[in-house]
Amino acid sequence: MKKKKVSFGNSAVDYYFHADFARLEKLVAKERTVIVTDEHVFKTHQKKFKGWNTIVLKPGEEFKVQQTVDVVIDQLIELGADRKTTLVGVGGGVITDITGYVAGIYMRGIACGFVPTSLLAMVDASIGGKNGIDVGVYKNMVGLIRQPSFLLFDHSFLKSLPKVEWQNGFAEIIKHAAIKDAALFKLLQSHRLTDFQRDAQLLAKLIERNVLIKTKVVVNDEFEKGERKLLNYGHTLGHAIENMYELSHGQAISIGMTYAALMSKQLKGFKQADELIAVLDKYGLPTFAEFDTKEAFRILQKDKKKDNQQISYILLEKIGKGVVQPLLFVQLKEIFNQFT
Amino acid sequence: MKKKKVSFGNSAVDYYFHADFARLEKLVAKERTVIVTDEHVFKTHQKKFKGWNTIVLKPGEEFKVQQTVDVVIDQLIELGADRKTTLVGVGGGVITDITGYVAGIYMRGIACGFVPTSLLAMVDASIGGKNGIDVGVYKNMVGLIRQPSFLLFDHSFLKSLPKVEWQNGFAEIIKHAAIKDAALFKLLQSHRLTDFQRDAQLLAKLIERNVLIKTKVVVNDEFEKGERKLLNYGHTLGHAIENMYELSHGQAISIGMTYAALMSKQLKGFKQADELIAVLDKYGLPTFAEFDTKEAFRILQKDKKKDNQQISYILLEKIGKGVVQPLLFVQLKEIFNQFT
Repeated sequence: MKKKKVSFGNSAVDYYFHADFARLEKLVAKERTVIVTDEHVFKTHQKKFKGWNTIVLKPGEEFKVQQTVDVVIDQLIELGADRKTTLVGVGGGVITDITGYVAGIYMRGIACGFVPTSLLAMVDASIGGKNGIDVGVYKNMVGLIRQPSFLLFDHSFLKSLPKVEWQNGFAEIIKHAAIKDAALFKLLQSHRLTDFQRDAQLLAKLIERNVLIKTKVVVNDEFEKGERKLLNYGHTLGHAIENMYELSHGQAISIGMTYAALMSKQLKGFKQADELIAVLDKYGLPTFAEFDTKEAFRILQKDKKKDNQQISYILLEKIGKGVVQPLLFVQLKEIFNQFT
Repeated sequence: MKKKKVSFGNSAVDYYFHADFARLEKLVAKERTVIVTDEHVFKTHQKKFKGWNTIVLKPGEEFKVQQTVDVVIDQLIELGADRKTTLVGVGGGVITDITGYVAGIYMRGIACGFVPTSLLAMVDASIGGKNGIDVGVYKNMVGLIRQPSFLLFDHSFLKSLPKVEWQNGFAEIIKHAAIKDAALFKLLQSHRLTDFQRDAQLLAKLIERNVLIKTKVVVNDEFEKGERKLLNYGHTLGHAIENMYELSHGQAISIGMTYAALMSKQLKGFKQADELIAVLDKYGLPTFAEFDTKEAFRILQKDKKKDNQQISYILLEKIGKGVVQPLLFVQLKEIFNQFT
């Protein structure tokens, strides 16, 4: 186990790398803690939850909605949760998003911590304090930026992770490489998914490296005025098509990264689009896809990143260097028309 | 018009005292602003809203619930509101609470300002950044502490205020006097409600004085670790019975203050319970009341202010000096039994 304290603007988060779930008992008072998890995680790891107050939700992005928040709040009232209660989200990104959001609004804010159980949640979703829910087809339309008190990384949860979930995680890992870390990109080129699944050491290093890439970006710019926007690489088009076609998040942003790479070629002279697309493909992710560009464009115009008539699109100058590119919707529409 | 800038921990709020609603055009860009108001205010002051994007809600505390929040969010998406949009709540406490809450969570937070139109909203609800909604019988169970960018006080809204709303406002004014300001209490003793309704100068001074009492408390303790708790005087029992009996907020906390005064007599040697009750009565507020003490006690045990087996109850040592008194629920139950 390795502990690291990270200071954000108004709060500090304790990271417990390479830890064991059992450590949770040392971090919080069991009788004043409520765990939020989903049926998958609960059934697969039932022993771990013994003796904990637990709220078990239905799994899946389609439940990352207000109705689920209502259910959690009703159960918290029922359980007698008060301002001294700590909520702990044990699950993938949907669970950490909902848990963080409920903790932010219940009684105007109570403490929370996360135990991410999917690769994607470990390297991305659980980090940085963004939480929230979807509204119709609009992703994360409602939520907060609020840091948890701690993150506990227990890799044993990954043993039961289905392949598509591994691929989802690698979509964000490839994104980190593309915008920030050319050496990581080389590492990904020279390995394949099964290497990381088989080699616990290699995987542990990969997770920690990615946690620290994202953490550094968020520490520099918690409220997304500048650098943090880079983390949206692949996410603008990605979010638009994710709920349209019920894609997994990784699949959606992989397609988003593919088209953003083509746009980078056109607008920024980016020369490595083929290499990036090859790596996405190697890790089992979709790249080119048929989608309704008109509908995607309509949804995208309601994106949180929009500012009146324009939107901040993330492009690449080269592998390891993402840039924020403001684009007028009229320009973007023309570009999208090329994709049909 | 008199402007005052107040600095809270992470933010500053501009107060515009004695201002005119028309000034709003100078504070925000009209085309990037959405006003949230209710049918009463909208119908009575229709001309003021001309040319503004406006979301009009049904009036009343029973609509201070998640369903209304959902409606506002859907309309904001429909209107194309983005992160540069400012929400302006024009109304009483229900409207400023909902507007502040939606602004805090929509796209993870957009700017907001308030134009309080009721006396209660002017002297209390719009100040201090607490916002939120009720969950069943539990008041303000969900919400945030987040300051607005500005407050605009236009007393012309009070001309159309029904009498019961004036009384509601005076409940909070009497509370401020009881916990913090013995001189204000004397002023209230030596006048009656109609004096303030008739004398615009007297009223303006009263509003500003109360705004500054509350502001000072919140500046000292924005996140309610200590002093801010005093503002809950009358609110613990008050909140429990408010939704049980569909009382107005002022009526509920007036009854709450009455019983808290009796408790103060018993536990703190408070000698002015009769004076306080006389003033509540003078301003048309209910004092002693028959209520289901068992049910009230049950609801109260879920109050946000509870901490495991105890609750912070606000009592008075003397007029002008409120104190925080931790009480075990077992003690409180005994005390409540005396009231039946």
